[in-house]
Amino acid sequence: MAKNDVKLIGAWPSPFVLRARIALNVKSVEYEFLQETMEPKSELLLKSNPVHKKIPVLLHNDKPICESLIIVEYIDEAWASGPSILPSDPYERAIARFWAAYTDEKWFPAMKGILGAQNDEARMAAVGQVTEGLVLLEEAFQKISKGKSFFGGDHIGYLDIAFGGFLAWIRVTEGMGGIKLLNETNTPGLLKWAEKFAADPAVKDVLPETQKLAEFSKIIIAKLRAAAAAKAK
Amino acid sequence: MAKNDVKLIGAWPSPFVLRARIALNVKSVEYEFLQETMEPKSELLLKSNPVHKKIPVLLHNDKPICESLIIVEYIDEAWASGPSILPSDPYERAIARFWAAYTDEKWFPAMKGILGAQNDEARMAAVGQVTEGLVLLEEAFQKISKGKSFFGGDHIGYLDIAFGGFLAWIRVTEGMGGIKLLNETNTPGLLKWAEKFAADPAVKDVLPETQKLAEFSKIIIAKLRAAAAAKAK
Repeated sequence: MAKNDVKLIGAWPSPFVLRARIALNVKSVEYEFLQETMEPKSELLLKSNPVHKKIPVLLHNDKPICESLIIVEYIDEAWASGPSILPSDPYERAIARFWAAYTDEKWFPAMKGILGAQNDEARMAAVGQVTEGLVLLEEAFQKISKGKSFFGGDHIGYLDIAFGGFLAWIRVTEGMGGIKLLNETNTPGLLKWAEKFAADPAVKDVLPETQKLAEFSKIIIAKLRAAAAAKAK
Repeated sequence: MAKNDVKLIGAWPSPFVLRARIALNVKSVEYEFLQETMEPKSELLLKSNPVHKKIPVLLHNDKPICESLIIVEYIDEAWASGPSILPSDPYERAIARFWAAYTDEKWFPAMKGILGAQNDEARMAAVGQVTEGLVLLEEAFQKISKGKSFFGGDHIGYLDIAFGGFLAWIRVTEGMGGIKLLNETNTPGLLKWAEKFAADPAVKDVLPETQKLAEFSKIIIAKLRAAAAAKAK
Protein backbone atom coordinates (compact mmCIF):
# COMPACT_ATOMS: atom_id res chain seq x y z
CA MET A 1 0.00 0.00 0.00
CA ALA A 2 1.36 3.37 -1.00
CA LYS A 3 1.81 5.91 1.77
CA ASN A 4 -0.76 8.15 0.21
CA ASP A 5 -3.37 5.85 -1.21
CA VAL A 6 -6.37 8.10 -1.80
CA LYS A 7 -9.72 7.06 -3.23
CA LEU A 8 -13.00 8.91 -3.38
CA ILE A 9 -16.32 7.08 -3.61
CA GLY A 10 -18.67 9.43 -5.39
CA ALA A 11 -20.84 10.34 -8.36
CA TRP A 12 -20.32 13.28 -10.71
CA PRO A 13 -23.69 15.02 -10.19
CA SER A 14 -23.44 15.20 -6.38
CA PRO A 15 -22.74 18.67 -4.94
CA PHE A 16 -21.36 17.00 -1.82
CA VAL A 17 -18.93 14.82 -3.75
CA LEU A 18 -17.84 17.90 -5.68
CA ARG A 19 -16.75 19.55 -2.43
CA ALA A 20 -14.34 16.70 -1.72
CA ARG A 21 -12.97 16.78 -5.29
CA ILE A 22 -12.32 20.53 -5.16
CA ALA A 23 -10.62 20.26 -1.77
CA LEU A 24 -8.36 17.49 -3.08
CA ASN A 25 -7.54 19.66 -6.10
CA VAL A 26 -6.72 22.66 -3.92
CA LYS A 27 -4.20 20.49 -2.10
CA SER A 28 -2.94 18.89 -5.35
CA VAL A 29 -3.71 15.42 -4.00
CA GLU A 30 -3.92 12.69 -6.61
CA TYR A 31 -6.76 10.27 -6.07
CA GLU A 32 -8.73 7.52 -7.69
CA PHE A 33 -12.37 8.40 -8.31
CA LEU A 34 -14.64 5.40 -7.69
CA GLN A 35 -17.88 6.08 -9.53
CA GLU A 36 -20.80 4.91 -7.38
CA THR A 37 -23.97 4.09 -9.31
CA MET A 38 -26.07 3.59 -6.12
CA GLU A 39 -28.17 0.97 -7.95
CA PRO A 40 -27.52 -1.03 -5.88
CA LYS A 41 -25.09 0.65 -3.48
CA SER A 42 -21.65 -0.93 -3.71
CA GLU A 43 -20.29 -3.25 -1.05
CA LEU A 44 -17.44 -0.79 -0.58
CA LEU A 45 -19.83 2.11 0.12
CA LEU A 46 -21.94 0.06 2.56
CA LYS A 47 -18.83 -1.11 4.37
CA SER A 48 -17.18 2.34 4.40
CA ASN A 49 -20.21 4.36 5.52
CA PRO A 50 -22.49 1.87 7.31
CA VAL A 51 -24.27 4.60 9.29
CA HIS A 52 -25.48 6.87 6.48
CA LYS A 53 -24.69 4.75 3.38
CA LYS A 54 -24.10 8.00 1.50
CA ILE A 55 -21.50 9.48 -0.81
CA PRO A 56 -18.94 10.98 -0.69
CA VAL A 57 -16.58 8.73 1.23
CA LEU A 58 -12.88 9.49 1.19
CA LEU A 59 -10.61 6.48 1.65
CA HIS A 60 -7.16 7.51 2.85
CA ASN A 61 -4.92 4.47 3.15
CA ASP A 62 -8.16 2.46 3.42
CA LYS A 63 -9.49 4.50 6.35
CA PRO A 64 -12.95 5.91 5.52
CA ILE A 65 -13.92 9.53 6.18
CA CYS A 66 -17.60 10.43 5.66
CA GLU A 67 -19.73 13.59 5.39
CA SER A 68 -18.61 16.17 2.88
CA LEU A 69 -17.76 19.09 5.17
CA ILE A 70 -15.89 16.78 7.53
CA ILE A 71 -13.98 15.42 4.52
CA VAL A 72 -13.02 18.96 3.46
CA GLU A 73 -11.69 19.75 6.95
CA TYR A 74 -9.85 16.41 7.00
CA ILE A 75 -8.18 17.14 3.66
CA ASP A 76 -7.14 20.56 4.93
CA GLU A 77 -5.61 19.05 8.07
CA ALA A 78 -4.06 15.92 6.54
CA TRP A 79 -2.24 17.61 3.65
CA ALA A 80 0.00 20.60 4.19
CA SER A 81 0.48 20.96 0.42
CA GLY A 82 -1.31 23.88 -1.20
CA PRO A 83 -3.01 26.81 0.51
CA SER A 84 -5.05 26.41 3.70
CA ILE A 85 -8.72 25.81 3.08
CA LEU A 86 -9.97 27.01 6.47
CA PRO A 87 -8.97 30.53 7.54
CA SER A 88 -6.26 30.60 10.20
CA ASP A 89 -8.09 32.96 12.57
CA PRO A 90 -10.44 31.12 15.00
CA TYR A 91 -13.23 33.67 14.60
CA GLU A 92 -13.05 33.58 10.80
CA ARG A 93 -13.08 29.78 10.97
CA ALA A 94 -16.22 29.86 13.11
CA ILE A 95 -17.94 32.22 10.66
CA ALA A 96 -17.01 30.03 7.67
CA ARG A 97 -18.32 26.94 9.49
CA PHE A 98 -21.51 28.78 10.41
CA TRP A 99 -22.38 29.65 6.83
CA ALA A 100 -21.34 26.25 5.51
CA ALA A 101 -23.73 24.61 8.00
CA TYR A 102 -26.39 27.14 6.96
CA THR A 103 -26.14 26.13 3.30
CA ASP A 104 -26.67 22.47 4.22
CA GLU A 105 -29.31 22.80 6.89
CA LYS A 106 -31.44 25.70 5.69
CA TRP A 107 -30.62 26.79 2.18
CA PHE A 108 -30.22 23.54 0.26
CA PRO A 109 -33.51 22.04 1.57
CA ALA A 110 -35.24 25.10 0.07
CA MET A 111 -33.40 24.49 -3.24
CA LYS A 112 -34.77 20.94 -3.27
CA GLY A 113 -38.16 22.53 -2.62
CA ILE A 114 -37.95 24.38 -5.95
CA LEU A 115 -37.11 21.23 -7.88
CA GLY A 116 -39.67 19.06 -6.10
CA ALA A 117 -42.56 21.57 -6.11
CA GLN A 118 -45.94 20.09 -7.07
CA ASN A 119 -47.40 23.35 -8.34
CA ASP A 120 -46.59 26.99 -9.08
CA GLU A 121 -47.59 28.17 -5.62
CA ALA A 122 -45.23 25.74 -3.87
CA ARG A 123 -42.53 26.54 -6.39
CA MET A 124 -42.79 30.30 -5.87
CA ALA A 125 -42.70 29.85 -2.09
CA ALA A 126 -39.51 27.80 -2.43
CA VAL A 127 -37.97 30.37 -4.79
CA GLY A 128 -38.74 33.00 -2.14
CA GLN A 129 -36.94 31.00 0.55
CA VAL A 130 -33.94 30.33 -1.67
CA THR A 131 -33.70 34.00 -2.59
CA GLU A 132 -33.90 35.04 1.06
CA GLY A 133 -31.02 32.65 1.80
CA LEU A 134 -28.98 34.01 -1.11
CA VAL A 135 -29.45 37.56 0.15
CA LEU A 136 -28.06 36.45 3.53
CA LEU A 137 -25.15 34.73 1.78
CA GLU A 138 -24.53 37.87 -0.29
CA GLU A 139 -24.31 39.95 2.91
CA ALA A 140 -21.95 37.35 4.36
CA PHE A 141 -19.87 37.44 1.17
CA GLN A 142 -19.55 41.23 1.32
CA LYS A 143 -18.36 41.06 4.92
CA ILE A 144 -16.09 38.04 4.65
CA SER A 145 -14.42 38.61 1.28
CA LYS A 146 -13.56 42.26 2.06
CA GLY A 147 -13.55 43.17 -1.62
CA LYS A 148 -11.54 40.15 -2.73
CA SER A 149 -12.74 37.49 -5.18
CA PHE A 150 -13.62 34.69 -2.80
CA PHE A 151 -15.01 34.00 0.66
CA GLY A 152 -11.48 32.70 1.25
CA GLY A 153 -9.94 36.00 0.06
CA ASP A 154 -7.56 35.72 -2.88
CA HIS A 155 -8.08 31.98 -3.27
CA ILE A 156 -10.99 29.63 -2.71
CA GLY A 157 -11.51 28.41 0.85
CA TYR A 158 -13.88 26.39 2.99
CA LEU A 159 -17.04 28.40 2.40
CA ASP A 160 -16.33 28.77 -1.33
CA ILE A 161 -16.14 24.99 -1.50
CA ALA A 162 -19.19 24.43 0.70
CA PHE A 163 -21.45 26.83 -1.22
CA GLY A 164 -19.76 26.36 -4.59
CA GLY A 165 -20.57 22.65 -4.54
CA PHE A 166 -24.11 23.75 -5.37
CA LEU A 167 -23.24 26.14 -8.22
CA ALA A 168 -24.01 23.76 -11.08
CA TRP A 169 -27.33 22.91 -9.45
CA ILE A 170 -28.14 26.61 -9.13
CA ARG A 171 -27.52 26.99 -12.86
CA VAL A 172 -29.69 23.98 -13.69
CA THR A 173 -32.50 25.34 -11.49
CA GLU A 174 -32.22 28.74 -13.18
CA GLY A 175 -32.35 27.12 -16.62
CA MET A 176 -35.43 25.07 -15.78
CA GLY A 177 -37.51 27.85 -14.44
CA GLY A 178 -36.36 30.89 -16.38
CA ILE A 179 -35.44 32.48 -13.06
CA LYS A 180 -32.21 34.20 -12.14
CA LEU A 181 -31.38 33.13 -8.61
CA LEU A 182 -28.04 34.91 -8.81
CA ASN A 183 -28.60 38.39 -10.23
CA GLU A 184 -27.35 41.98 -10.23
CA THR A 185 -30.13 43.22 -7.97
CA ASN A 186 -29.95 40.82 -5.01
CA THR A 187 -26.58 39.16 -5.29
CA PRO A 188 -24.13 41.25 -7.33
CA GLY A 189 -21.17 39.93 -5.33
CA LEU A 190 -22.15 36.27 -5.65
CA LEU A 191 -22.83 36.74 -9.36
CA LYS A 192 -19.21 37.76 -9.93
CA TRP A 193 -18.02 35.17 -7.43
CA ALA A 194 -19.76 32.41 -9.42
CA GLU A 195 -17.82 33.24 -12.59
CA LYS A 196 -14.49 33.28 -10.80
CA PHE A 197 -15.27 30.14 -8.82
CA ALA A 198 -16.25 28.18 -11.94
CA ALA A 199 -13.03 29.27 -13.68
CA ASP A 200 -10.73 28.38 -10.77
CA PRO A 201 -8.10 25.75 -11.63
CA ALA A 202 -9.27 23.56 -8.71
CA VAL A 203 -12.87 23.72 -9.92
CA LYS A 204 -13.12 24.00 -13.68
CA ASP A 205 -12.35 20.39 -14.58
CA VAL A 206 -14.69 18.86 -12.00
CA LEU A 207 -17.67 21.25 -12.09
CA PRO A 208 -20.51 19.41 -13.84
CA GLU A 209 -21.43 20.86 -17.23
CA THR A 210 -24.83 22.55 -16.88
CA GLN A 211 -26.47 20.90 -19.90
CA LYS A 212 -25.36 17.42 -18.86
CA LEU A 213 -26.49 18.01 -15.28
CA ALA A 214 -29.85 19.37 -16.52
CA GLU A 215 -30.37 16.10 -18.37
CA PHE A 216 -29.48 14.05 -15.30
CA SER A 217 -31.59 16.27 -13.04
CA LYS A 218 -34.78 14.95 -14.63
CA ILE A 219 -34.35 11.71 -12.67
CA ILE A 220 -33.78 13.59 -9.40
CA ILE A 221 -36.70 15.94 -10.02
CA ALA A 222 -39.05 13.00 -10.63
CA LYS A 223 -37.92 11.46 -7.32
CA LEU A 224 -38.31 14.73 -5.40
CA ARG A 225 -41.79 15.28 -6.84
CA ALA A 226 -42.84 11.74 -6.00
CA ALA A 227 -41.59 12.25 -2.44
CA ALA A 228 -43.42 15.59 -2.15
CA ALA A 229 -46.61 14.01 -3.53
CA ALA A 230 -46.39 11.12 -1.04
CA LYS A 231 -45.89 13.60 1.80
CA ALA A 232 -48.88 15.71 0.71
CA LYS A 233 -51.22 12.71 0.88
CA MET B 1 -13.31 46.43 27.14
CA ALA B 2 -11.19 43.74 28.75
CA LYS B 3 -9.04 41.69 26.41
CA ASN B 4 -10.95 38.56 27.25
CA ASP B 5 -14.51 39.68 27.71
CA VAL B 6 -16.53 36.46 27.48
CA LYS B 7 -20.28 36.15 27.76
CA LEU B 8 -22.56 33.24 27.00
CA ILE B 9 -26.21 33.73 26.11
CA GLY B 10 -27.98 30.58 27.24
CA ALA B 11 -30.45 28.80 29.45
CA TRP B 12 -29.66 26.12 32.02
CA PRO B 13 -31.84 23.31 30.60
CA SER B 14 -30.40 23.45 27.06
CA PRO B 15 -28.10 20.55 26.10
CA PHE B 16 -26.54 22.79 23.46
CA VAL B 17 -25.76 25.58 25.90
CA LEU B 18 -24.27 22.99 28.25
CA ARG B 19 -21.73 22.04 25.58
CA ALA B 20 -20.42 25.59 25.48
CA ARG B 21 -20.26 25.81 29.29
CA ILE B 22 -18.31 22.56 29.58
CA ALA B 23 -15.87 23.63 26.86
CA LEU B 24 -15.28 26.95 28.64
CA ASN B 25 -14.69 25.05 31.89
CA VAL B 26 -12.22 22.67 30.22
CA LYS B 27 -10.23 25.72 29.14
CA SER B 28 -10.69 27.47 32.52
CA VAL B 29 -12.20 30.50 30.80
CA GLU B 30 -14.17 32.81 33.05
CA TYR B 31 -17.38 34.06 31.53
CA GLU B 32 -20.60 35.81 32.33
CA PHE B 33 -23.69 33.66 31.86
CA LEU B 34 -26.57 35.65 30.41
CA GLN B 35 -29.74 33.75 31.21
CA GLU B 36 -32.09 33.91 28.21
CA THR B 37 -35.77 33.41 29.03
CA MET B 38 -36.84 33.32 25.35
CA GLU B 39 -40.18 34.91 26.29
CA PRO B 40 -39.69 37.10 24.42
CA LYS B 41 -36.23 36.56 22.97
CA SER B 42 -33.84 39.25 24.13
CA GLU B 43 -32.66 42.06 21.88
CA LEU B 44 -29.12 40.83 22.43
CA LEU B 45 -29.97 37.32 21.21
CA LEU B 46 -31.82 38.61 18.13
CA LYS B 47 -28.94 40.92 17.30
CA SER B 48 -26.26 38.30 17.96
CA ASN B 49 -27.86 35.40 16.10
CA PRO B 50 -30.21 36.99 13.55
CA VAL B 51 -30.21 33.93 11.29
CA HIS B 52 -31.31 31.21 13.73
CA LYS B 53 -32.29 33.30 16.79
CA LYS B 54 -31.19 30.37 18.95
CA ILE B 55 -29.07 29.79 22.02
CA PRO B 56 -26.23 29.33 22.77
CA VAL B 57 -24.38 32.38 21.52
CA LEU B 58 -20.85 33.00 22.74
CA LEU B 59 -19.79 36.64 22.82
CA HIS B 60 -16.02 37.01 22.78
CA ASN B 61 -15.04 40.65 23.01
CA ASP B 62 -18.54 41.38 21.65
CA LYS B 63 -18.09 39.16 18.58
CA PRO B 64 -20.89 36.58 18.40
CA ILE B 65 -20.25 32.89 17.67
CA CYS B 66 -23.32 30.70 17.10
CA GLU B 67 -24.14 26.97 16.88
CA SER B 68 -22.98 24.82 19.77
CA LEU B 69 -20.49 22.54 18.01
CA ILE B 70 -18.96 25.50 16.21
CA ILE B 71 -18.67 27.29 19.56
CA VAL B 72 -16.88 24.28 21.08
CA GLU B 73 -14.36 24.23 18.20
CA TYR B 74 -13.92 27.99 18.53
CA ILE B 75 -13.21 27.72 22.25
CA ASP B 76 -10.66 24.99 21.56
CA GLU B 77 -8.92 27.14 18.95
CA ALA B 78 -9.13 30.51 20.69
CA TRP B 79 -7.78 29.43 24.10
CA ALA B 80 -4.57 27.49 24.44
CA SER B 81 -5.17 27.12 28.20
CA GLY B 82 -6.19 23.64 29.35
CA PRO B 83 -6.12 20.40 27.39
CA SER B 84 -7.08 20.23 23.71
CA ILE B 85 -10.73 19.44 23.14
CA LEU B 86 -10.37 18.07 19.60
CA PRO B 87 -7.90 15.20 19.08
CA SER B 88 -4.68 16.28 17.37
CA ASP B 89 -4.72 13.55 14.72
CA PRO B 90 -6.72 14.56 11.59
CA TYR B 91 -8.39 11.14 11.27
CA GLU B 92 -9.41 11.08 14.93
CA ARG B 93 -10.75 14.62 14.54
CA ALA B 94 -12.84 13.53 11.56
CA ILE B 95 -14.25 10.58 13.50
CA ALA B 96 -15.12 12.77 16.50
CA ARG B 97 -16.83 15.29 14.20
CA PHE B 98 -18.71 12.48 12.45
CA TRP B 99 -20.25 11.14 15.65
CA ALA B 100 -20.95 14.61 17.03
CA ALA B 101 -22.90 15.40 13.84
CA TYR B 102 -24.64 12.04 14.16
CA THR B 103 -25.89 12.86 17.66
CA ASP B 104 -27.41 16.12 16.42
CA GLU B 105 -28.80 15.03 13.08
CA LYS B 106 -30.00 11.49 13.75
CA TRP B 107 -29.95 10.56 17.40
CA PHE B 108 -31.35 13.63 19.16
CA PRO B 109 -34.40 13.91 16.83
CA ALA B 110 -35.27 10.35 17.92
CA MET B 111 -34.88 11.39 21.58
CA LYS B 112 -37.37 14.20 20.99
CA GLY B 113 -39.60 11.55 19.43
CA ILE B 114 -39.76 9.69 22.76
CA LEU B 115 -40.75 12.82 24.68
CA GLY B 116 -43.24 14.02 22.08
CA ALA B 117 -44.88 10.64 21.37
CA GLN B 118 -48.68 10.75 21.15
CA ASN B 119 -49.19 7.11 22.10
CA ASP B 120 -47.39 3.96 23.26
CA GLU B 121 -46.79 2.72 19.73
CA ALA B 122 -45.05 5.94 18.65
CA ARG B 123 -43.15 6.00 21.91
CA MET B 124 -41.85 2.44 21.56
CA ALA B 125 -40.81 3.12 17.96
CA ALA B 126 -38.83 6.16 19.12
CA VAL B 127 -37.26 4.18 22.00
CA GLY B 128 -36.18 1.60 19.40
CA GLN B 129 -34.50 4.28 17.26
CA VAL B 130 -32.77 5.85 20.24
CA THR B 131 -31.52 2.45 21.41
CA GLU B 132 -30.21 1.65 17.94
CA GLY B 133 -28.32 4.92 17.98
CA LEU B 134 -26.91 4.26 21.44
CA VAL B 135 -25.66 0.84 20.31
CA LEU B 136 -23.79 2.58 17.45
CA LEU B 137 -22.38 5.12 19.89
CA GLU B 138 -21.34 2.30 22.25
CA GLU B 139 -19.42 0.64 19.39
CA ALA B 140 -17.83 3.98 18.57
CA PHE B 141 -16.93 4.47 22.23
CA GLN B 142 -15.23 1.06 22.42
CA LYS B 143 -13.15 1.87 19.34
CA ILE B 144 -12.32 5.48 20.11
CA SER B 145 -11.68 5.36 23.87
CA LYS B 146 -9.37 2.31 23.60
CA GLY B 147 -10.13 1.24 27.17
CA LYS B 148 -9.81 4.72 28.64
CA SER B 149 -12.57 6.62 30.45
CA PHE B 150 -13.63 9.06 27.75
CA PHE B 151 -14.05 9.40 24.01
CA GLY B 152 -11.23 11.90 24.44
CA GLY B 153 -9.04 9.31 26.25
CA ASP B 154 -7.93 10.27 29.76
CA HIS B 155 -9.87 13.53 29.73
CA ILE B 156 -13.10 14.71 28.18
CA GLY B 157 -12.92 15.87 24.59
CA TYR B 158 -15.09 17.01 21.69
CA LEU B 159 -17.34 13.97 21.42
CA ASP B 160 -17.71 13.67 25.20
CA ILE B 161 -18.95 17.25 25.21
CA ALA B 162 -21.17 16.79 22.15
CA PHE B 163 -22.88 13.63 23.43
CA GLY B 164 -22.59 14.48 27.12
CA GLY B 165 -24.61 17.64 26.62
CA PHE B 166 -27.60 15.30 26.40
CA LEU B 167 -26.84 13.22 29.50
CA ALA B 168 -29.24 14.99 31.86
CA TRP B 169 -31.98 14.69 29.24
CA ILE B 170 -31.26 10.95 28.90
CA ARG B 171 -31.73 10.61 32.66
CA VAL B 172 -34.98 12.58 32.61
CA THR B 173 -36.28 10.43 29.76
CA GLU B 174 -35.33 7.28 31.64
CA GLY B 175 -37.07 8.52 34.77
CA MET B 176 -40.28 9.39 32.93
CA GLY B 177 -40.71 6.10 31.19
CA GLY B 178 -39.18 3.59 33.56
CA ILE B 179 -36.78 2.64 30.74
CA LYS B 180 -33.04 2.26 30.96
CA LEU B 181 -31.63 3.78 27.79
CA LEU B 182 -28.09 3.30 29.10
CA ASN B 183 -27.76 -0.22 30.48
CA GLU B 184 -25.36 -3.11 31.07
CA THR B 185 -26.69 -5.14 28.15
CA ASN B 186 -26.50 -2.67 25.24
CA THR B 187 -24.21 0.06 26.44
CA PRO B 188 -21.92 -1.11 29.26
CA GLY B 189 -19.17 1.28 28.19
CA LEU B 190 -21.44 4.33 27.98
CA LEU B 191 -23.01 3.44 31.33
CA LYS B 192 -19.61 3.75 33.02
CA TRP B 193 -18.74 6.75 30.86
CA ALA B 194 -21.88 8.58 32.06
CA GLU B 195 -20.84 8.31 35.71
CA LYS B 196 -17.34 9.58 35.02
CA PHE B 197 -18.55 12.33 32.73
CA ALA B 198 -21.08 13.62 35.29
CA ALA B 199 -18.39 13.68 37.99
CA ASP B 200 -15.78 15.49 35.87
CA PRO B 201 -14.67 18.84 37.33
CA ALA B 202 -15.60 20.64 34.08
CA VAL B 203 -19.08 19.13 34.13
CA LYS B 204 -20.36 18.55 37.65
CA ASP B 205 -21.26 22.13 38.53
CA VAL B 206 -23.07 22.86 35.27
CA LEU B 207 -24.87 19.55 34.59
CA PRO B 208 -28.57 20.14 35.31
CA GLU B 209 -29.88 18.26 38.33
CA THR B 210 -32.17 15.47 37.06
CA GLN B 211 -35.15 16.25 39.33
CA LYS B 212 -35.10 19.97 38.49
CA LEU B 213 -34.80 19.21 34.76
CA ALA B 214 -37.64 16.67 34.98
CA GLU B 215 -39.85 19.41 36.41
CA PHE B 216 -38.85 21.82 33.63
CA SER B 217 -39.23 19.12 30.97
CA LYS B 218 -43.01 19.12 31.43
CA ILE B 219 -43.18 22.39 29.52
CA ILE B 220 -41.01 21.03 26.69
CA ILE B 221 -42.95 17.76 26.52
CA ALA B 222 -46.25 19.62 26.23
CA LYS B 223 -44.80 21.64 23.34
CA LEU B 224 -43.39 18.57 21.58
CA ARG B 225 -46.72 16.72 21.92
CA ALA B 226 -48.66 19.70 20.61
CA ALA B 227 -46.28 19.88 17.63
CA ALA B 228 -46.62 16.13 16.99
CA ALA B 229 -50.41 16.38 17.23
CA ALA B 230 -50.51 19.30 14.78
CA LYS B 231 -48.30 17.34 12.36
CA ALA B 232 -50.50 14.24 12.62
CA LYS B 233 -53.63 16.18 11.58
